[in-house]
Formats: sequence, C-alpha cells, structure tokens
Amino acid sequence: MSARPDRQLHLNLFITATGHHEASWRHPGSPVENIYTAKHFQDLAQRAEAAKLDAVFFADIPALTPQVEHGPAGHLEPITTLASIAAVTERIGLIATASTTYYEPYNLARLFASLDHLSGGRAGWNIVTTASAAAAENFGSEPFPDPAQRYARAEEFLQAATRLWDSWEDDAIIADRASGRYADPAKIHRADFAGSHLSVGGAFSAPRPPQGYPVLVQAGSSNEGRAFAARWAEAIFTAHQRIEDAQAFYADIKSGAISAGRRPDDVVILPGLSPFIGSTAAEAHDLEQELNELTVPAYGLRQLSALVGVTLGEDDLDRPVPLELFAGAGDVTDNNRSRFQVVAGIVERERPTLRGLLHRLAGARGHRVLTGTPDQIADSIEEWFTRGAADGFNVMPPFHPGGFEAFVDHVVPILQQRGLFRTEYEGRTLRENLGLERPANQYAGTLAGSLAEAIA
Amino acid sequence: MSARPDRQLHLNLFITATGHHEASWRHPGSPVENIYTAKHFQDLAQRAEAAKLDAVFFADIPALTPQVEHGPAGHLEPITTLASIAAVTERIGLIATASTTYYEPYNLARLFASLDHLSGGRAGWNIVTTASAAAAENFGSEPFPDPAQRYARAEEFLQAATRLWDSWEDDAIIADRASGRYADPAKIHRADFAGSHLSVGGAFSAPRPPQGYPVLVQAGSSNEGRAFAARWAEAIFTAHQRIEDAQAFYADIKSGAISAGRRPDDVVILPGLSPFIGSTAAEAHDLEQELNELTVPAYGLRQLSALVGVTLGEDDLDRPVPLELFAGAGDVTDNNRSRFQVVAGIVERERPTLRGLLHRLAGARGHRVLTGTPDQIADSIEEWFTRGAADGFNVMPPFHPGGFEAFVDHVVPILQQRGLFRTEYEGRTLRENLGLERPANQYAGTLAGSLAEAIA
Repeated sequence: MSARPDRQLHLNLFITATGHHEASWRHPGSPVENIYTAKHFQDLAQRAEAAKLDAVFFADIPALTPQVEHGPAGHLEPITTLASIAAVTERIGLIATASTTYYEPYNLARLFASLDHLSGGRAGWNIVTTASAAAAENFGSEPFPDPAQRYARAEEFLQAATRLWDSWEDDAIIADRASGRYADPAKIHRADFAGSHLSVGGAFSAPRPPQGYPVLVQAGSSNEGRAFAARWAEAIFTAHQRIEDAQAFYADIKSGAISAGRRPDDVVILPGLSPFIGSTAAEAHDLEQELNELTVPAYGLRQLSALVGVTLGEDDLDRPVPLELFAGAGDVTDNNRSRFQVVAGIVERERPTLRGLLHRLAGARGHRVLTGTPDQIADSIEEWFTRGAADGFNVMPPFHPGGFEAFVDHVVPILQQRGLFRTEYEGRTLRENLGLERPANQYAGTLAGSLAEAIA
Repeated sequence: MSARPDRQLHLNLFITATGHHEASWRHPGSPVENIYTAKHFQDLAQRAEAAKLDAVFFADIPALTPQVEHGPAGHLEPITTLASIAAVTERIGLIATASTTYYEPYNLARLFASLDHLSGGRAGWNIVTTASAAAAENFGSEPFPDPAQRYARAEEFLQAATRLWDSWEDDAIIADRASGRYADPAKIHRADFAGSHLSVGGAFSAPRPPQGYPVLVQAGSSNEGRAFAARWAEAIFTAHQRIEDAQAFYADIKSGAISAGRRPDDVVILPGLSPFIGSTAAEAHDLEQELNELTVPAYGLRQLSALVGVTLGEDDLDRPVPLELFAGAGDVTDNNRSRFQVVAGIVERERPTLRGLLHRLAGARGHRVLTGTPDQIADSIEEWFTRGAADGFNVMPPFHPGGFEAFVDHVVPILQQRGLFRTEYEGRTLRENLGLERPANQYAGTLAGSLAEAIA
C-alpha cells in the first residue's frame, strides 16, 4: 500500500497556546500575552490553511492542570474556539477533543453538528474518555470510572450520537414555499437509544451535518482504546519514538480495522511529531538547547509524575534515572500506559540523567522530537510515510510562531516538491481531504422511529 | 427614573432562522435555503451591529419541536453560532440561551467563558430551566422535573458557575518570562461547591472572563422565575401585550431587585416586540395580512397546544374561541403560565375566532406584534420606555431580511434623532453597553481554596 503513487501525506497542526515545548511561553517572541484571544488561534489556523494542512487540532481536558504556576495551563474550550476559526477560514479541518465521560450525548452531538454546519463540513471530534481525577471532581463524580466503564459508556455514546446525526435523512428538508411543507416527517427519526450508561429519546434538533458525522478521531492506545478505535476511529493520533514501534502499531490498527469489517484506508494514522528546524543541524540543536535551558525543573518533575506516575525530586536531577522505576507497569492510569512505555524505552535505551530525561520530555511530553534541517525533517517524514509507520503526522510545533513558520515555510515545500503533499485541497470537507467516505445514513429507506406518525 | 435625560434605550435583535412570524419562511424573499450556514447569521448580526444594537440573542431548547413539518424547527446550537458571529463583529453583544437542567456547570461555564474571551467580553447567557418533556427524554430523564426542583438546581448551578468564573482572580496571571512564573497559585481558587443537585470540585480551566461573568439574562415569569431573577438576572426578556401589564411587571421586578439588595439599574427589562413596518399604516397591515395568509392552520393549532395547552381542531377555525377554555389555569407547564395569561387576555378582550387568534399568535407566539409606520413604532417604543414599562426591547422581526431592515433603516434613526438610542457604542463589552457593573470577584483578597498549598 505504501508504494501507491497517488497516496498523499496528511498533516495536522496540533495547536497549543504557545507551542508544545513546555518552556515555549518564555521564549522572547512567544505570544503568551495573547493566548486567550480569538485572533491568536485564527492566525495560526490561517497559516496552516495557507500551507494546505488537513486540519488544526485542539486537545482538551475539563480541568485545570496543576502545572499552572510555571506554564500557561489554562485554555479555552476547543469547540467554541474552532467555531471562531471556522469564520475566518474556508478549507482547513477543525478537530476538537471532547469527553464521552463528562458530556451528555445530546449536548455534544449538537455542538459538533453545529460546528460542521457552520464550517461547511470541516468538523472532527477527537473522542476521549478522560482518565483524570481532577476532571472527575469537576462533575461531582466519585473516583473516576475505570477504563472498562469509560469505554462501555463511550461505545453507547457513539451509538447514540450517530443516531442523532442520522436523525434527519439527507433529503428530509423540502422547504416548499408553495405548499407550506418544510420537512418530510417520514424522513426524520427518533434516536430511541436506551443503554446502561445513557439514553436518548427524541429526534435531533438540526439537520444531518454536511459530513454525515464529524470525522471521528481517537488517540487511546490502551487495549480498550484500540478495540474502540477499530470500530469507530477514522483518524488516530499516536505517540512513537521509533519507526519500528510505529510500524507495529500501524499494522495492528489496520488489521484491527479489517477485522471490524472496514478497509485499511478507512483509518488514517497520524503520529505526533515536534520538529526543531534550523538551516544547519547544529542550529536546530542550539534552538532545542535554548528552549531546554528555559525549563523549570519543578514543572518537568510534576509533568513526569502526571504523565507516568514516577515521582522524583530536584536532588536527583544530575543522577541517572533509576532503571528499576520503570521495571513494572508503574502507578499509571490505563490511558497513560502507552506513554509510560515510551518513557521507559527512552530510559532503557539512553540511560539519561533525570535532567536529560526532563529535557527529552520537555519538547512534546513523550511525542517524537525531531531536530534537524528541513531536508532531514522531510526525509524522516518520507521514511515513516513510505515504510508503513504513518499516513501523515500531527505536527506539534515546539514554539509559536517561529517553530510553526519554519515547518510551513521550509519543510512543507520540500514535501510538495517530492509529490508527497498536496499543493491544493482535494475537496471542501475534512472527509474529502482525508480521503474518508461520507457515512451512509442508518435510517435511509426505513421508517424506524419516524416522526410521520406522531405528526400526521 | 424614567425622566432622566441620560437614560438610553437598549435594543436586542432576537434572531430566528427566517423571522418570528411562523410563515416567514414561505415569504418570497425568505432566506430559508441558507438557515444552516454561518453566513446567514453573521450577516444579520453585522446589520444589527451597524445599527448599534446592544446584542443579538438566540433562544434554545435541546429538542426538536414537533412543528417541523410546516416550519424550519431545526436550529443550530447558539453558543457555537455566536462564536462564529464573534469572529466577524466587534462590538455587539452575543446572548445564547442554555439550560441549567440539561447541562453540567463545568461544561457550560467553560463554553460561556470561552465565548466571552473569544469575543473580548461580549457574551450573555439567557438562563432557562427547560420545562419540556421532549428535552427530558433526550437526556434519559424521567418525566421532567417540576419547577421547584428545576429552580433549586438552577440556584446551585449559578453558585457553582460564578465560583468557576471567579476561580482565577483578575491578576492571577504573571507571565514573567525571566522568572518562569506563569501564574500565582495563591490567586487561583478551587470552586469547592457541593450542593444537592450538583457539585464542582476543582479550579477553573481558564482565566476569569473579560466581563467577570457573562451578562446573566432570564426570561421566566413564573413565581420561581421571578424570585430567581431578583437574585441573579441582569437583563430580563418578557412578553406583554399591554402597557399596563408591562408596567406592573416592570415595577415588580425592580422592587424585587431592591429587596434582594440590588439597584434598579442592575436589571434591564426588555419586552419582546415584533414590528410590521410600512410607509403607511395600511401598507404595514397589508404586510401582516400577507404573512398571516401564508400560515398553515395545522401548524398554528399545534403551536397553540404547545404554548398554552389548549387543543382545538380545524373545524373550529371560523368559530369564536370558547372563553371557558381559558377560565382555569389550563393544562400548562409552569413556565408557560404567563404566556397562558397573555393569550387568555387576548381571547377575553378581543373575542377572536380561532383563525383570528392563530393569526394574532402567528407573529410572535404571544409577544407583542406592533403594526404601523416607523413613527408609530417609534412612538410606542418611546411611550413604553418613558412610562416605566421597559428599559428597551427585544426586537423580533417578523421576517428576514426585509422585516429587520425596515426596523434598522427607518425606526432606529427616529429613536436616535429623539435622543433615545445611541449613535455610537458606549463601550467594548456587553456590560458596558447595557450599563451593567462588572461583578467583583468573590475570592479577591482571600486564600479560600487557593492552589498555593496544593502546588507549593
């Protein structure tokens, strides 16, 4: 499959306020003063659109992360931010993270349907189940639900949400001024979903979104997450340091999709990539070093603890990280297990000091940091793309605006020259640009739960 | 108070897809083909901003209303729609309806905080408790909660939401690149709210909104609604047919606010007004008649039943509406009681046929329809404004785009010439334009629930 000449890379911009490197906000040119304004995010999205990227993407958790003392942990809500971006862009996809554990399906289905209508078919939903005690307490929840419960609810949530999005058939609206008939009630259906974790009764409050459903994105690498992804995910965000790990994951997901009765191309796999770019390799390394020197160890230690459940102190900074800390599965939540393995792999292979490990993680929290010239970055992207490790990348600029500008100004043109990346958008919707089918409507041609009776 | 020369009218545009008259979508120039596009709503908001209106406003219910066969009942979600409008406007306020019964406070507080940040302080929240069986079943709820329960939850919801919005003090962010300190954890507070209906634990995920809180708007006229409004509402939408009823309501709300320890000016009262405008009175009446003749009786009968619990059939269209149907309180939900009284008043005073009553309600569902020349409309606005019946109006154009254009092109200039309405915005935020104070932060100067300990 990787040898197909028509196969094109997909590139997202994963937007954080000042960039993915934890010290990015301290960089002299950082936009830290503007990170709660629409314009800051609109500008980034417009640059991404000018470079023909597939989508912009926002992560999310409904809680404040405790690193706020040493970094801009506060953040705007993604769906509203993307609605504001939709208004000043025309073609780029708009992917928001939202939690199946802490939303009601009718509310969330409406938010995404509206984003899809408002953007003319550019919405994507990164589905998360939110393994976080801090989030749980914001919803009056007991210690947060275990993975089996969270994914059982997520499964029901997707069934309910897709019924809501399918509630109006594509030709339900008649809008005939002469007869006074606006819609055909035989083509509007009640969701009628009753599960163990949630239920939804009525018809949806808006017509079917332009894309049918928003593009369904997923990032969980746990066993539950992979099983869920095999059934539902159309794009997958993932974190790998080494091509062999990425290849194994890629093969596993594609075969999981086939087992679930889908085609391999129905799932687009996008590992994270945080590029430090210089006109020489040395310049790129200096840039990375400059940012690493701006890190605050207390921040990194708290991040390490949150990420992989390993707690170390400032006294340990210049000692090698003890291998035995990573011998077991650690005190990690299920959702963090794959990230734990990534970090354990770094410790095992590189035997870094604690400071060195914090620097390795400062760039992108366990995602791959790639340092080099534009050609070197493009070479690595091409290698992963053509050797069955990736369908594209979730680009995580280490700092804004320069770190992203270097990528779009110097790496994207090389990828375009090599015929790997588009120079014009293929279509108008995110599905069209990702090469994904518009889903069929499960109610088409049936009268299941139709309003015709209730209304007639 | 009404004689103060500095007192200015406030005018909102209450946006519905094709206008407030139920047959507006059938009018030849109606925008019915575009009512799920951002551009349609952005254009309306830009016209309203050009006329210096205070705000645009969207109603909402998380359900599909059953009139969909004969009218565009589907609708986009308001907060996302307003985020998209925020991107193409600069000064006009953005008021979305959302339900305390069917949202979680952390989620909804985030959506409104984001809208306020993205718009630079222009968000307003029309707080509803959603008395609707159709909505209840979309959330797996039993027969929907009674008013006492709904308002008890709403009270807790506002306490939780205001704690979340206050979570970050106004000077919590330091963002000192040199020291690496981003925020002062002593100035970020946990919400720590535990009620009987909901609870919220942690700190908020974003800084305090520019306005402190979005402007809090309310429309419930039930006893529970008025008591809630006296404590929380900063603007009130209401429906009155006659100036004496509006005056009584106005006096009651202002004295309720005083009893709750607030100033009368802390609550802005805005009755609904649906103007049919013609260059002569006859032309205006013809316009109204033209739209009334486009109504579908089946739609109006269903609307009447939904609105006031009175069910009549097409056979009764040309008979007088029986007075005894409105003798008791009717089979109405508490939230609809005031609307029931409005309709009962019309029946009692005017003794209409059923068709006549449907026409009276077709314009704005019980809100006041005013038919006349621009001067006549302006005279009535001035009378209500100067005689203690209103601080302004929630303008409900009967049809788009012409019905609203006539208002901004011909009525607004008269109000401006009379010195009743602004020719330039007073401020940048909705609070500034409505003359409302920015609320103090309940945590300022305290360490209550601060993150300093947890983080230190």
